[in-house]
This record gives sequence, structure tokens and C-alpha cells, in this order.
Amino acid sequence: MIIQLEPVAYVSNSRKNISDDFWGDVISEIILAPHLPDEAFSNIEEFSHLDILFHFSQATETLYSGRPRDKNEYPLMGIFAQRKKDRPNHIGLTTVELISHDDRKIVVKGLDALDGTPVLDIKPVFREFGVRGTIRQPVWVEDLMKNYWK
Amino acid sequence: MIIQLEPVAYVSNSRKNISDDFWGDVISEIILAPHLPDEAFSNIEEFSHLDILFHFSQATETLYSGRPRDKNEYPLMGIFAQRKKDRPNHIGLTTVELISHDDRKIVVKGLDALDGTPVLDIKPVFREFGVRGTIRQPVWVEDLMKNYWK
Repeated sequence: MIIQLEPVAYVSNSRKNISDDFWGDVISEIILAPHLPDEAFSNIEEFSHLDILFHFSQATETLYSGRPRDKNEYPLMGIFAQRKKDRPNHIGLTTVELISHDDRKIVVKGLDALDGTPVLDIKPVFREFGVRGTIRQPVWVEDLMKNYWK
Repeated sequence: MIIQLEPVAYVSNSRKNISDDFWGDVISEIILAPHLPDEAFSNIEEFSHLDILFHFSQATETLYSGRPRDKNEYPLMGIFAQRKKDRPNHIGLTTVELISHDDRKIVVKGLDALDGTPVLDIKPVFREFGVRGTIRQPVWVEDLMKNYWK
């Protein structure tokens, strides 16, 4: 079974090269693709946060396991036990803060996607739809994320 | 630009029909697609929660705006200001609790996907990658979600 998707929007920002750290302060514009009408963004400014699903369009490898960030000090993990870009289907997902909405453009903060990245979907964050209970995670995650928010 | 995806897993559960409410207690198995090796799930049990990206494979419509749940008492919202299934690319996203992992199968709680649903990606929830700050949302969201967790 093959599923065909078409980007609904594109990212515009200052990040031209892959870098894994310091994404928290990055401001990105997300601009609707030409085939979508303006109404797709209607009233989106009523939400403070969005889930951005995007395509790691510069990722060429597909791994099924490996060490996060390829760092020897991190353990071997299955690809679905990490968020590495070199994954089946190359889909990225980040929760961002919505800064503003103007017609066919939204401005968001904290998106870890390069300039030109195709966006596959945008969903509002619902307070009632988040994590239930306490998050448990391996110790390497905190170390890996320590520079994301500077 | 067309992006081609192949399901990485499939959902197996008791839900054969679309129903928008009472999903919080649903237990689902997610079984790796045959072309993926067992190692893709390696160590996934070290995480308590997962983001499941799936394809609303029974959705046939694509809307660009509308009322959530088609209820007259809810306002008109752009498709990216709601999580309705009838959206461009028909991608669903739900954060679930991981109950267990056994070889090529994981068991999760709270996935609002029908039996047989193709899964596009599975990502572990990182504590440091969640919402920053306080979530703001329109008042209809709380009403829409009031039955999800029973």
C-alpha cells in the first residue's frame, strides 16, 4: 500500500543547514501551498500552540535502529524509540508556539525544520488531548535535549 | 510535489466503526508491517508515551474549513484550526500510553483509530519536547473533548 501526500504549506526561515541544537528560539513562517484556499487557516489564531507535521525532505537514509544523534554515549534504540530524521517515511513532528496569523501565513516559534521544508499537516493543540499521567523516558533524552531551548 | 509513504505498522483493535467519543479507554495493538525488522521497536518500552501518526484511510472527503464535528453550536474554523479527519492528506495524530512491547507488537491505550488503520510513524514522547507555556484554545474544544476520557 502506497499513500500519496501533497504538501499543504512550506517553511520559510533562516535555517539553511542541518543542525540538531538550538531550535527553540527559531522563528519560522509557514505559508499555505498554492492549491489551498485562505480559509484553511481561518481562526487558527484562537490557539496558542500547533502540532506541525513535516517532511524531512533532505533526509536520504532510512534506519531501523541506531544511537540517537549517533553519539556513542547513547544506547542503541529502535527507530520508533527515537525521533531521528533518518526514519521510515521521514516525517517530523514538532509542537510550536503560534506567534501570529496573517491571511495565508502563520508565524511560529520553535520549529526544528529547515528553510523550504514541506509541511504535511498542521493541527491545533488541545489541552485535553495531551499526555495523560507522568512521562517516563530514558536518561539520554534530557542530555540530548539540553541545548534545544538554549 | 508528491510524497509517497508506506505504512510502517497497522492497528488492531475492537473499533470497527467511526465514532467520535469514548476513545480514552480503547486498547489497541500496533503490529509492524512485514517489511520492517523487529529492531524498529527495540527498547521502545523505556518510554511511557508515544505519538502515533496514522492515515485516516476511510476518510474520503477533503474540507478546508467547517464546524468541528459538524455541530451547529461550534463556530466555523479552518481545517488547520481543528483536528477533523476530513483534512488534506488525512493524517491523524494521537498521543497514547504505551502498555507493553512484545517483539513486533506494542499495545497502547487511547488511540482513536479504527481496526486496520495504517500507521505512518511512531515517535516517543520526550518530556522536553512538549508544549512550552500555557495552552490557549477556544471554548468549544473542552465541550468536544468532554466524552473522550469518559
